[in-house]
Amino acid sequence: MRDVGIGIVGYGLMGRAHAHGYTLAPRVRELNVVPRLRVISGRNEAAVAAAARRYGVEESTTDWREVVARDDVDIVDVCTPPGAHAEVVEAAAAAGKAVVCEKPLAADYASARAAAEAARGVPNAIGFNYRRLPALALFHRLVQEGAVGDVLLWRGSWLSDEFLDPDIPFDWRFEKRMGASTFADLGAHLIDLALWTVGPIAEVSAQSETFTRTRSGREVDVGEASSALLRFEDGRVRGTLEVARVCARRPCDFSVEVNGTRGTLRFDYERLNELWYGEAGDEGRFYGLRRIRAEHPSHPYAAEWWPIGQGVGYGASFVNQAADLLERWPAARWDPDLAHGAQVQRVCEAMERAAAERRWLSVDEVE
Amino acid sequence: MRDVGIGIVGYGLMGRAHAHGYTLAPRVRELNVVPRLRVISGRNEAAVAAAARRYGVEESTTDWREVVARDDVDIVDVCTPPGAHAEVVEAAAAAGKAVVCEKPLAADYASARAAAEAARGVPNAIGFNYRRLPALALFHRLVQEGAVGDVLLWRGSWLSDEFLDPDIPFDWRFEKRMGASTFADLGAHLIDLALWTVGPIAEVSAQSETFTRTRSGREVDVGEASSALLRFEDGRVRGTLEVARVCARRPCDFSVEVNGTRGTLRFDYERLNELWYGEAGDEGRFYGLRRIRAEHPSHPYAAEWWPIGQGVGYGASFVNQAADLLERWPAARWDPDLAHGAQVQRVCEAMERAAAERRWLSVDEVE
Amino acid sequence: MRDVGIGIVGYGLMGRAHAHGYTLAPRVRELNVVPRLRVISGRNEAAVAAAARRYGVEESTTDWREVVARDDVDIVDVCTPPGAHAEVVEAAAAAGKAVVCEKPLAADYASARAAAEAARGVPNAIGFNYRRLPALALFHRLVQEGAVGDVLLWRGSWLSDEFLDPDIPFDWRFEKRMGASTFADLGAHLIDLALWTVGPIAEVSAQSETFTRTRSGREVDVGEASSALLRFEDGRVRGTLEVARVCARRPCDFSVEVNGTRGTLRFDYERLNELWYGEAGDEGRFYGLRRIRAEHPSHPYAAEWWPIGQGVGYGASFVNQAADLLERWPAARWDPDLAHGAQVQRVCEAMERAAAERRWLSVDEVE
Amino acid sequence: MRDVGIGIVGYGLMGRAHAHGYTLAPRVRELNVVPRLRVISGRNEAAVAAAARRYGVEESTTDWREVVARDDVDIVDVCTPPGAHAEVVEAAAAAGKAVVCEKPLAADYASARAAAEAARGVPNAIGFNYRRLPALALFHRLVQEGAVGDVLLWRGSWLSDEFLDPDIPFDWRFEKRMGASTFADLGAHLIDLALWTVGPIAEVSAQSETFTRTRSGREVDVGEASSALLRFEDGRVRGTLEVARVCARRPCDFSVEVNGTRGTLRFDYERLNELWYGEAGDEGRFYGLRRIRAEHPSHPYAAEWWPIGQGVGYGASFVNQAADLLERWPAARWDPDLAHGAQVQRVCEAMERAAAERRWLSVDEVE
Repeated sequence: MRDVGIGIVGYGLMGRAHAHGYTLAPRVRELNVVPRLRVISGRNEAAVAAAARRYGVEESTTDWREVVARDDVDIVDVCTPPGAHAEVVEAAAAAGKAVVCEKPLAADYASARAAAEAARGVPNAIGFNYRRLPALALFHRLVQEGAVGDVLLWRGSWLSDEFLDPDIPFDWRFEKRMGASTFADLGAHLIDLALWTVGPIAEVSAQSETFTRTRSGREVDVGEASSALLRFEDGRVRGTLEVARVCARRPCDFSVEVNGTRGTLRFDYERLNELWYGEAGDEGRFYGLRRIRAEHPSHPYAAEWWPIGQGVGYGASFVNQAADLLERWPAARWDPDLAHGAQVQRVCEAMERAAAERRWLSVDEVE
Repeated sequence: MRDVGIGIVGYGLMGRAHAHGYTLAPRVRELNVVPRLRVISGRNEAAVAAAARRYGVEESTTDWREVVARDDVDIVDVCTPPGAHAEVVEAAAAAGKAVVCEKPLAADYASARAAAEAARGVPNAIGFNYRRLPALALFHRLVQEGAVGDVLLWRGSWLSDEFLDPDIPFDWRFEKRMGASTFADLGAHLIDLALWTVGPIAEVSAQSETFTRTRSGREVDVGEASSALLRFEDGRVRGTLEVARVCARRPCDFSVEVNGTRGTLRFDYERLNELWYGEAGDEGRFYGLRRIRAEHPSHPYAAEWWPIGQGVGYGASFVNQAADLLERWPAARWDPDLAHGAQVQRVCEAMERAAAERRWLSVDEVE
Repeated sequence: MRDVGIGIVGYGLMGRAHAHGYTLAPRVRELNVVPRLRVISGRNEAAVAAAARRYGVEESTTDWREVVARDDVDIVDVCTPPGAHAEVVEAAAAAGKAVVCEKPLAADYASARAAAEAARGVPNAIGFNYRRLPALALFHRLVQEGAVGDVLLWRGSWLSDEFLDPDIPFDWRFEKRMGASTFADLGAHLIDLALWTVGPIAEVSAQSETFTRTRSGREVDVGEASSALLRFEDGRVRGTLEVARVCARRPCDFSVEVNGTRGTLRFDYERLNELWYGEAGDEGRFYGLRRIRAEHPSHPYAAEWWPIGQGVGYGASFVNQAADLLERWPAARWDPDLAHGAQVQRVCEAMERAAAERRWLSVDEVE
Repeated sequence: MRDVGIGIVGYGLMGRAHAHGYTLAPRVRELNVVPRLRVISGRNEAAVAAAARRYGVEESTTDWREVVARDDVDIVDVCTPPGAHAEVVEAAAAAGKAVVCEKPLAADYASARAAAEAARGVPNAIGFNYRRLPALALFHRLVQEGAVGDVLLWRGSWLSDEFLDPDIPFDWRFEKRMGASTFADLGAHLIDLALWTVGPIAEVSAQSETFTRTRSGREVDVGEASSALLRFEDGRVRGTLEVARVCARRPCDFSVEVNGTRGTLRFDYERLNELWYGEAGDEGRFYGLRRIRAEHPSHPYAAEWWPIGQGVGYGASFVNQAADLLERWPAARWDPDLAHGAQVQRVCEAMERAAAERRWLSVDEVE
């Protein structure tokens, strides 16, 4: 078995989560390669060294360009704040490395598109990890199988309390240039699920509000509560999206639901191993929704993990993502790729502009 | 104890529900009056006679003007389709009767305003029954008591499957002139709760779609799936609203949630005796939401019903409404009144127009 | 339509609930008779008079024998504490009245058997109201239809906090002779559901504990927490039962579940309009339980109430019970009858004795 | 940092889960040692070799005695079927190795006691992994902190469908000598939680049934549905326990609840990151149970994993267990140890005998 060297740029939560993914991928799936966590980079020398030890990475560096330059690194995995993604992606692609980039691909569409363009010649992937949860992969599969018929409505929401306290000091998450908008930071996952499951979004109307407008004396230009109305390209499908970070005692509660001509599917991240399904044509005596335990051996990913009823957690999404990537190594296209990441970013930017310009905006208008 | 004579116009579901309310009101509350269900009207003679027997009403008639004209009728309770409300309200007020009118007050704002105006001289009430559920009354009380602090966000949604089947034949519900828009028919309840709990709505953006555009060869001009973004007058409060009738195996699932500076409150009609509450300042070790059983004797209405844990149903909302009205009889102002009903209708119409005109619309623009 | 006169003995919660049932029965079902609440009795003259007004009963008396004696009373409905049931039942039957008796039929099996025997010549019914909830009636129907196959296991539990506070003063509920044991007071409902759905119970082992052994200086001889193991007569079916009154913040949470060769059914009273059903042979991709909304028009009782999704409450169980009784008036046998009530009491007493004697006890041993 | 060599005996699900634990332990906690998965044993040479690759173990062998004998193995981790535990434990202890043994410690108390005795001189631990879930560790902590006051009642149940299909062929799980009773296999986890949280159990009554008594022509002597009544040593505390493997569409649903003088705590494994807590003295307006998200940084283990709201899965219990063991290496006592495992087994055997002898049995009678 051949080694595949991985270099991680950024040692925050996402760096840890991606390292976790590579560490466990060979434990859940028979792979032809052995992932080696060669190096991780970050600006604080002591902190990144500690992270390397904790995450199980062989070496650390304060210079991300070193990660990109190393011969023993095959895949550069970009886990910096969003605004710093594009530069690393471009450098890595220029160095001929495969690229995995956390979402959102960038803090604006122009950068996202440029990064995707730059990476066209190398294997590249965007990190929409939630797709890799068994329940959300099953959600997608059931829609593909026609379980809901033709989709009519899609709705997604993400409620957290992370910005509720006005005394949280300023950091990069409050600065759009670096942290991306809330439409992009939280919404990108939801939009990815919408595009993946339903199809392209044509038009949006949106609003966004920031309740605490300065922190640590600096202006906050990131929305704390943003919402949008959606029209999809395909037929008459409509949708709604809400992302909010000021919802007390809602840690990270996201939901997606589709209603189609034949059925309803709903996922609540609060119960991440479950899926709710209702079939319009089902017997009247069973009227209601089924609570599917998305852990049956026939479900996506499930057989690789634990016996039914045991449940996986957040970490499994990164493990499954890493396994999906490594399984196709070397060569092959990855899915979703950075071009898809750029499409998601385009929708995010359409929402940002629709909110700012107070009008319905076609996603095509974003260039 | 003095009798108060009630005449009901319309014998459909709402006629039945209102009759149920008057029948049981004296069973849950000590009243100074005895409600007498004198007469009910409807166009089909046999059917309205059968309804009178079933609902416990003394007499029936096919002429609603007879209800309005009778000396032994003190309160005219209007339960016709929305488009027929205003005429009855106006006639009843002209005859000096007190008026109770089901929501929405009318199918358009001009009619609603005219009806409210006409009824100014008599006791008048609009039928937002869900307010009278213990859990929603407690929701309102907790907001008033400051349990969520200053409101930042409000969201409401109503998902049903009543229009999903394209083979349902045309009836008045599919005709806006008579059945009112879906923003008004389902949304009015949600908007009432928003106005009551949070305050006036200033601006909206909206969309609406009809998937089955003809039924029985007639055009359907009522939305099947409508949604809106809201900005409230009071400060920066934002909101979202969705009303949809094409959601398989979702019979009548409505939810409202507010997020404020100090807490979160959520109600799901699927579990109508419960309320979810989270307090931002609560101990970390108890992080999460409380599931309040809205049946404690200290809760609104609860002590009049059953011991804690037993639960009430939909019907209780009409009983509590009737008790609240009869308790103030004779004289007194009722709350909410038709003027409030007109305000709700104004917001509905703002949403309809915002959807049609594809732009943000100030509620003030609706006249 | 013929009047049927009803006299209620006892004006506590059960008197109110039964009056509520007779009041609304004609509102939910087309009946050939008109129930008339003629009289209600109780020892406190002012209180029973107030109750008569509140419950909608024509007259009140402090002498229950007057209720039994009145010519205009056809049905004597017994709502006293359990220990006082038998005497009233026997007097009513001797007077040729039909008898409806709240559960448990008596505080001991000998009295229960004697009362059932005495009532053999008149229409008689025992008040297991929860059977009449749509969801529990559907539970029974689904078992009858074979939805779970052959029953293997049954479990029931009832958790409340009503006796948790040691400072609650002594009243008749703490005295077995009058209030019956906790096996009988709470357990009777569960045992009724077990016998109705699964079949006779053959043998039991049990335990019972009282944590607060004196109240107001008097000895408490009623269990606060009692549990039992069950073996049914039919084949190898096993069961468990727990009834406890010291469970903080559990107001009245009862559950029943059966597991059979083909499926599982579960009911939680906390969500009384729902039923959980899982089918062993269902597709793997749908693995899990369905949450049935027990409000579909095809479900028992449901079409008589509200549209699907609206939900009924505790009160509906008494209304449906009254309708089921009145529908068969005059004549006919009622189901369940007092003989069944005595069988339930026999099982309760078997549990009491098994707990006291610390041994497995055959229900047959109770005489 | 010093290496600690681990040898795993048995490569089934538990071998995989324990390997997973050692692999990730250094990723969640700062340890002073580096766990090395040296060798894993099993009877099928090809299968154990494949397992070694999949689990990340350096070598494999078909002779468990080789695992015990290796110099580079410090800890022998016993993951064979229960009936084979004791021999391996004794050999490992005799070789001076530390011992970790999966539950149940043995298939009978005599063996369990002998194994615990044999291991007294070496570090030894029993694998009750569920204790290490954040929510169950928080459950225990809250009880210790007095959140429920004095415990009055404990209940535990474990419902699965693993044996429902009568066509599942015979394997060691159906043979008590090797697979242990269902009281021991499923119940041991529940009994561990009871002993840990509440205290020793004094007396039991029990029953057990097997519906499919032969499989593949061989007799099944393991219960498919077993239940027990419990009296604890400490005061008047009572409990119930049910373990059943014939519950359709119940994959692995276990619950534990305690009710005390001041509160209620409940855990359902179906939602393994949650805990329900109700406080008797809480404000009436908040009556109900709190749904605690057991992921707050102040909760046990939680800060080592993911941000709040993300959730862990089954695997985390093994990782936390491994971290707890390795953190104390070398030296120190582990908790829970094999002596505790033997105490749990003693209760299991008391239940088995109580069921067989159809009588209340003191746990002391088991020797």
